[in-house]
Amino acid sequence: MRYLKDLKDGEHVQGIYLCKQKTSAVTKNGKPYDNVILQDKTGSIDCKIWDVGNAGIMDFDVFDYIDIIGDVSIFNNAMQISIKRARVAKEGEYDPADYLPVSEKNIDDMYKELLDIISRISNVHLKALLEEFFVKDEEFIKKFKFTSAAKSVHHGFVGGLLEHTLSVTKTCVFLAGHYPVINKDLLITAAICHDIGKVKEFSAFPINDYTDEGNLIGHIVIGYEMVGEVCAKLGNFPKNLENELKHCILAHHGKLEFGSPKRPAIIEAVALNYADDLDAKMETFKEALDASVEPGWLGFNKMLESNIRSTHGEN
Amino acid sequence: MRYLKDLKDGEHVQGIYLCKQKTSAVTKNGKPYDNVILQDKTGSIDCKIWDVGNAGIMDFDVFDYIDIIGDVSIFNNAMQISIKRARVAKEGEYDPADYLPVSEKNIDDMYKELLDIISRISNVHLKALLEEFFVKDEEFIKKFKFTSAAKSVHHGFVGGLLEHTLSVTKTCVFLAGHYPVINKDLLITAAICHDIGKVKEFSAFPINDYTDEGNLIGHIVIGYEMVGEVCAKLGNFPKNLENELKHCILAHHGKLEFGSPKRPAIIEAVALNYADDLDAKMETFKEALDASVEPGWLGFNKMLESNIRSTHGEN
Amino acid sequence: MRYLKDLKDGEHVQGIYLCKQKTSAVTKNGKPYDNVILQDKTGSIDCKIWDVGNAGIMDFDVFDYIDIIGDVSIFNNAMQISIKRARVAKEGEYDPADYLPVSEKNIDDMYKELLDIISRISNVHLKALLEEFFVKDEEFIKKFKFTSAAKSVHHGFVGGLLEHTLSVTKTCVFLAGHYPVINKDLLITAAICHDIGKVKEFSAFPINDYTDEGNLIGHIVIGYEMVGEVCAKLGNFPKNLENELKHCILAHHGKLEFGSPKRPAIIEAVALNYADDLDAKMETFKEALDASVEPGWLGFNKMLESNIRSTHGEN
Amino acid sequence: MRYLKDLKDGEHVQGIYLCKQKTSAVTKNGKPYDNVILQDKTGSIDCKIWDVGNAGIMDFDVFDYIDIIGDVSIFNNAMQISIKRARVAKEGEYDPADYLPVSEKNIDDMYKELLDIISRISNVHLKALLEEFFVKDEEFIKKFKFTSAAKSVHHGFVGGLLEHTLSVTKTCVFLAGHYPVINKDLLITAAICHDIGKVKEFSAFPINDYTDEGNLIGHIVIGYEMVGEVCAKLGNFPKNLENELKHCILAHHGKLEFGSPKRPAIIEAVALNYADDLDAKMETFKEALDASVEPGWLGFNKMLESNIRSTHGEN
Amino acid sequence: MRYLKDLKDGEHVQGIYLCKQKTSAVTKNGKPYDNVILQDKTGSIDCKIWDVGNAGIMDFDVFDYIDIIGDVSIFNNAMQISIKRARVAKEGEYDPADYLPVSEKNIDDMYKELLDIISRISNVHLKALLEEFFVKDEEFIKKFKFTSAAKSVHHGFVGGLLEHTLSVTKTCVFLAGHYPVINKDLLITAAICHDIGKVKEFSAFPINDYTDEGNLIGHIVIGYEMVGEVCAKLGNFPKNLENELKHCILAHHGKLEFGSPKRPAIIEAVALNYADDLDAKMETFKEALDASVEPGWLGFNKMLESNIRSTHGEN
Amino acid sequence: MRYLKDLKDGEHVQGIYLCKQKTSAVTKNGKPYDNVILQDKTGSIDCKIWDVGNAGIMDFDVFDYIDIIGDVSIFNNAMQISIKRARVAKEGEYDPADYLPVSEKNIDDMYKELLDIISRISNVHLKALLEEFFVKDEEFIKKFKFTSAAKSVHHGFVGGLLEHTLSVTKTCVFLAGHYPVINKDLLITAAICHDIGKVKEFSAFPINDYTDEGNLIGHIVIGYEMVGEVCAKLGNFPKNLENELKHCILAHHGKLEFGSPKRPAIIEAVALNYADDLDAKMETFKEALDASVEPGWLGFNKMLESNIRSTHGEN
Repeated sequence: MRYLKDLKDGEHVQGIYLCKQKTSAVTKNGKPYDNVILQDKTGSIDCKIWDVGNAGIMDFDVFDYIDIIGDVSIFNNAMQISIKRARVAKEGEYDPADYLPVSEKNIDDMYKELLDIISRISNVHLKALLEEFFVKDEEFIKKFKFTSAAKSVHHGFVGGLLEHTLSVTKTCVFLAGHYPVINKDLLITAAICHDIGKVKEFSAFPINDYTDEGNLIGHIVIGYEMVGEVCAKLGNFPKNLENELKHCILAHHGKLEFGSPKRPAIIEAVALNYADDLDAKMETFKEALDASVEPGWLGFNKMLESNIRSTHGEN
Repeated sequence: MRYLKDLKDGEHVQGIYLCKQKTSAVTKNGKPYDNVILQDKTGSIDCKIWDVGNAGIMDFDVFDYIDIIGDVSIFNNAMQISIKRARVAKEGEYDPADYLPVSEKNIDDMYKELLDIISRISNVHLKALLEEFFVKDEEFIKKFKFTSAAKSVHHGFVGGLLEHTLSVTKTCVFLAGHYPVINKDLLITAAICHDIGKVKEFSAFPINDYTDEGNLIGHIVIGYEMVGEVCAKLGNFPKNLENELKHCILAHHGKLEFGSPKRPAIIEAVALNYADDLDAKMETFKEALDASVEPGWLGFNKMLESNIRSTHGEN
Repeated sequence: MRYLKDLKDGEHVQGIYLCKQKTSAVTKNGKPYDNVILQDKTGSIDCKIWDVGNAGIMDFDVFDYIDIIGDVSIFNNAMQISIKRARVAKEGEYDPADYLPVSEKNIDDMYKELLDIISRISNVHLKALLEEFFVKDEEFIKKFKFTSAAKSVHHGFVGGLLEHTLSVTKTCVFLAGHYPVINKDLLITAAICHDIGKVKEFSAFPINDYTDEGNLIGHIVIGYEMVGEVCAKLGNFPKNLENELKHCILAHHGKLEFGSPKRPAIIEAVALNYADDLDAKMETFKEALDASVEPGWLGFNKMLESNIRSTHGEN
Repeated sequence: MRYLKDLKDGEHVQGIYLCKQKTSAVTKNGKPYDNVILQDKTGSIDCKIWDVGNAGIMDFDVFDYIDIIGDVSIFNNAMQISIKRARVAKEGEYDPADYLPVSEKNIDDMYKELLDIISRISNVHLKALLEEFFVKDEEFIKKFKFTSAAKSVHHGFVGGLLEHTLSVTKTCVFLAGHYPVINKDLLITAAICHDIGKVKEFSAFPINDYTDEGNLIGHIVIGYEMVGEVCAKLGNFPKNLENELKHCILAHHGKLEFGSPKRPAIIEAVALNYADDLDAKMETFKEALDASVEPGWLGFNKMLESNIRSTHGEN
Repeated sequence: MRYLKDLKDGEHVQGIYLCKQKTSAVTKNGKPYDNVILQDKTGSIDCKIWDVGNAGIMDFDVFDYIDIIGDVSIFNNAMQISIKRARVAKEGEYDPADYLPVSEKNIDDMYKELLDIISRISNVHLKALLEEFFVKDEEFIKKFKFTSAAKSVHHGFVGGLLEHTLSVTKTCVFLAGHYPVINKDLLITAAICHDIGKVKEFSAFPINDYTDEGNLIGHIVIGYEMVGEVCAKLGNFPKNLENELKHCILAHHGKLEFGSPKRPAIIEAVALNYADDLDAKMETFKEALDASVEPGWLGFNKMLESNIRSTHGEN
Repeated sequence: MRYLKDLKDGEHVQGIYLCKQKTSAVTKNGKPYDNVILQDKTGSIDCKIWDVGNAGIMDFDVFDYIDIIGDVSIFNNAMQISIKRARVAKEGEYDPADYLPVSEKNIDDMYKELLDIISRISNVHLKALLEEFFVKDEEFIKKFKFTSAAKSVHHGFVGGLLEHTLSVTKTCVFLAGHYPVINKDLLITAAICHDIGKVKEFSAFPINDYTDEGNLIGHIVIGYEMVGEVCAKLGNFPKNLENELKHCILAHHGKLEFGSPKRPAIIEAVALNYADDLDAKMETFKEALDASVEPGWLGFNKMLESNIRSTHGEN
């Protein structure tokens, strides 16, 4: 397929794309037209249907995969497609994976790496708990691999939750070695579980929006409850260890004003908070750098609260 | 018994009191002595044992009920007892209720009033949930009646949780009538359940301190989880209603920085937040007024962030 | 008359509307045209006059009531009128009340309810003060009934100040009963007077904008001064009671950063602050719910600082 | 008289001092004694009466001027007097001015300087208003000269309000020349009036504490109301000018969180806010420097939020 | 030349202007056109080149001075030029000073005034340091006179840094006289040097944007380092005096959150902070007043955090 | 020697200790005595000299090493020594290292590890800069090994700066591997240099207090300037690289309110900020755990803003 990011001014295009948005409008002369946004895994593009009612343009809805023919031009310094033909594609004609933003890393490789870390946990209770989720619960595993880590900020792509979780966990493996006072198994288990509530906080791609539960409860408390349910199921999970693990999940945002109902009270919760926060900042920075064409200043970044600058390729 | 708040300078006192604190010390001349704090339900008093080792003063520990003889004097503008005789009292010699700060209102009357409100809930699911806790769960009921609503601030006495819950609930009954857009059964159920996590957050009197669970998890999330467990047990509880009820509990502190992991997103959560916060402020004010001897300015109150003033008996 | 909210795409419309805004512009082809916003009590609508200089379109100004003929179409997903004929309507041809947003409740009924509450005040000084404003001062009464409680947020309609004042006062009647430590007459008087400064803070509808006095002084201090002037006029008003009543008005926003020059220092001021703030939040929520077409999530509400959700009709 | 700051260890002292505080206590051996604090305009000193009941020590109360004989010693690195004889002094035996902290500058000279500035005001309304207070109102003038500008921070002495007002006014005279866009008469009038509410906010020396009105209303709004009353009395005061002058008084603390119900909206209010705030900081610094024995670091100053350092005598 | 602010609707214009911005676009009909912004010292204007490719319109780039012929019309209530002819002007055809926003005051007069203040410094070390910058360093002097004091807020014009520095310095001369505890020479030197880092923080006009050094280091620390380098060069500069002067520069923003790494710890640093901040506020207010057509309310000003009002010409 | 932390109640002690504090006082009976605080590397202890003037107690000053004989007792639950004999010890009689709090790790080993990391830097400029400090500058090296990383919080001991720097650097080595987008040499160099300004911010042990430069300038800007001086000395250091390195030092506290004059703008500055902050938190937690006798809750920790809990030895 021809990816949207490769389109050029003046080009004639034909292909199947995901419809993310569609609205009707009327020109000043009273002529109706449609605004459409199409997406594939490389980006999205504004489109117009000037010739509404044309027999070649069949009806379609948001989140349909549509097969279009059109002309590419530049408007307001951005690419735009004027759609001349359109029809809803049938399942089988396209691979949904081509239309979703996806991790640059291989999902199965990352998952294998995570399982490997789990296999090295010594504490039998913590290992059993992790296996309930990551080895035995097929539905959870499928969602965990597929879910985004966010709606719109860092790691907002298929596999994003897995990629973020693995990165945080590996940093925690380092920290547990670097600071021997840390209870290693507790920290690693907390790192692996810290965002599992996100499988219920976000609806599946391509929607990837907050669910009711996500809006009303939030992934921190959802993940806390999921851990509690598995502890109850396992039966003999030590109460003290359960409370500490749950505390790490509750406190992983570090501050009340960031949505954690408790500040970190044990050293593992402090370490997890830093590893998580740092990974979010690093990925945010990386995504901003990836999105920039030239090195140098990239403008004010809201999450990083600074005009940021690429150092890549320098020195 | 002779209540501590009634003791007078120069008086000779004999009676049984609860030992809240006991530490050993040495005078400048090298003479050992003991600092003791005794308590009954009317207050507490500093005591000294100057004559350590005296045969009439038998060994005792913190949280023992001790039978003492002593002399009352004034030191640093406060009453003080010099203990001359002491022995640990036996169970039966005293009524623990005499040694605990307790609600001014009758606990059983208040509980009856609460049950009456529950009986008027129309929604069968919400009523069933409330009955699981407040009608069927004997252990919960006992703790709920006995627990304090706080460690040291407002409602910090036996029956405090019940008194606070009832007051908040009655305000919510009013608000549901005053603002018809409110879902009455949802708000009242949320009001009754909003602080149930406190039965696990605080240890029993006379200790009344944070439990491990209280420190690591907190009553907001504990209460949330208790509601979730009963919903699961009931089986057919509507998911949407469960999420909204849980949300009200999570959001009842109103702001993230006050420990709620979510801001109120539904009108019932907003109303509950105000009713709860107002009741805390009213009781704080009332307790400050009760503690004052004369009308007028009472000094700076930390929770109310103002120098406060009694208007009682004026105008 | 045909209300704006009932207009449909493609419709031909004739009627009298209030002109809220009017600006001239030129198309890219150099043709002049006018942008106009018309309003009635059901909402407002963008209009264009493409045919400037047409004999059928007579000159008019902002805040004129104009009789128009035009065509309704959709532009950018919103209704728009292309005006073909226009003339300034004469007084008598229209009822200004049809062009103002207005309380859903009957203004006279609400006022009667307020007078009834005043009549039950026992304290002769407070009752006399209230009667000076609400019984004897015709000009004040007229303004008080007509004024909005806000420029653009909650209760921003004719009768809004009265509706908000009555609602807050009724909550205070409840609170004075619920918390016996409250000085009932003081609280109720303070509730009735808390926003009277708004009659001078806002100019009359349809402008409804801040006056110079509103911008420079603000309704809190204006209301304080109005109470002071009536106390001086009454002559024998107890100084202590006057200070406490004035304090309640000054402190009713609860926090310095919300514009109160003093934090609540007496229990009545605390109660009034909560009743006032809660009513603003409840009305904000209600107006957001009323404005929504379907139940569910309504998006982020700035005043409530949350994505909010309708629970209406559920459960 | 012998000033307290000149007393030396081991000295025998006789003199009349103001009693600021008096409390009774009992030693560990059961012997009663009294804690007394005496004050003159140079400072205050802790005293003990060990020999309570001694015929030579007659009864006295707080705020009595007492004639004492005693011995000076050092305790906890501070001077202390052991009182051996005491009697209440009669009016005429002492000059109250010797017992009050007082401005280092001559009060009458400062007042003359202020009148001179008033005499140069061109605007007849503003000049008339100032004369109502500072020329015609004998009671106000007496209080204004005598009042402190604060309870415990900067300018907390007799004449402090006058000294602070004059200093701020002179800075405003400079600023009105330096920034020609400023309305000079308005700024100077606002500067002279900005703290007049303090004559009612603080009770007279030696008490110098917040009055009821000070606590409930505060000097900002009190001063605003005083200006309003004089404007009403003058009759023809331009409304616009009155609002701007009142606004300057309301806004002179600069921020809502510092107790101003409005932020400065006109340039004169901005200039006044800076002149006032700067004078408070300069005086706070000066008083800290005066209180220090040696140059160098003086420790953390709460109002200046820094460890501060004397530069005096350097370089 | 014909200044942009004097252009009128319908006028035919010919002249040389600075090109600030240039972007290409395509109309809905696929016709390319250019958006251009032209500037002179009186303001800037939007332009269109509809006839791209026309032989009379030669190629030009951003920051070229171009000689244009065009037609003035109104679009969206703003002036606009339709460019018919364009060519790059040669050096000598225009005076760059005509195209830069510039101080209303004479730069050489202001500089002379500054030198005069420097000549009156008594402390030989401070005077020598100032002369290194302001008398001996030709390149610094040129930049100092030419640099703006800001990118977009107050004093954002040629000579702005000098004008702001002189104004702050003159206020400091006043303050050193008004508060004798101030070390006059230290304060005046600090005032003159406080913003010298801006000569490296901003690139030269017409760009006037943050340099890399400006973004990464900032004028506060740059200026601190410049002073340190000159102290090192002078050789015998007293260490204590150097630290105090450097501290004044570091602390001149007054608060950590405003970018000062230290709070003011000496009285000269406090005074400088107020003089600097006040001058910024006064100039911001003045520029807002200058930009307003009519007296009265000017709308919300972000820097002053208030709806502001002109008092000019009143009373 | 007998370490202070090993002393027991009732013991007779003889040994040499460092005098940290000494003040004179008088008992209520007029008898003079001295308060003394002695210290060794295991802690400090309160002492009394009741028998002032005794021939066996020779005069000594703060920061003398004194040889004492005394009796150990308990007062207010803490150990106390009553000093019976005292004389100033001569150099050679004691090893100052025994009286200073010192890193638990071997200083030379840590330094060797740091040099090893430096030797692996590829960038010649950065390596040269590091060698100027850590290989060639003997005086700097000596101070760097000896200095504390803080006055009173974490790493407040000899070798603390080295220990903290090494720990942060090793975390940065990990992060540079974990996040390939990071410029490894820049991050590691910044990590090694981030706190070098502390060698001038704190005076040497045993004083270990802020120097004038520390108070007025602070270690962030001092370190920035030290780096600038070495870059200037090296001559050919790339300007861009210098600015980025200096930026990392300036921004390493992460937020303006924590004393950084710039927020991190490059990814290396973000990573350094997290590594530094995390190490401070981990060490704070470790020191709190080390100071605790029993596992469990350790009380509220101000820096961690939570009641903290030991997990050591659990699970």
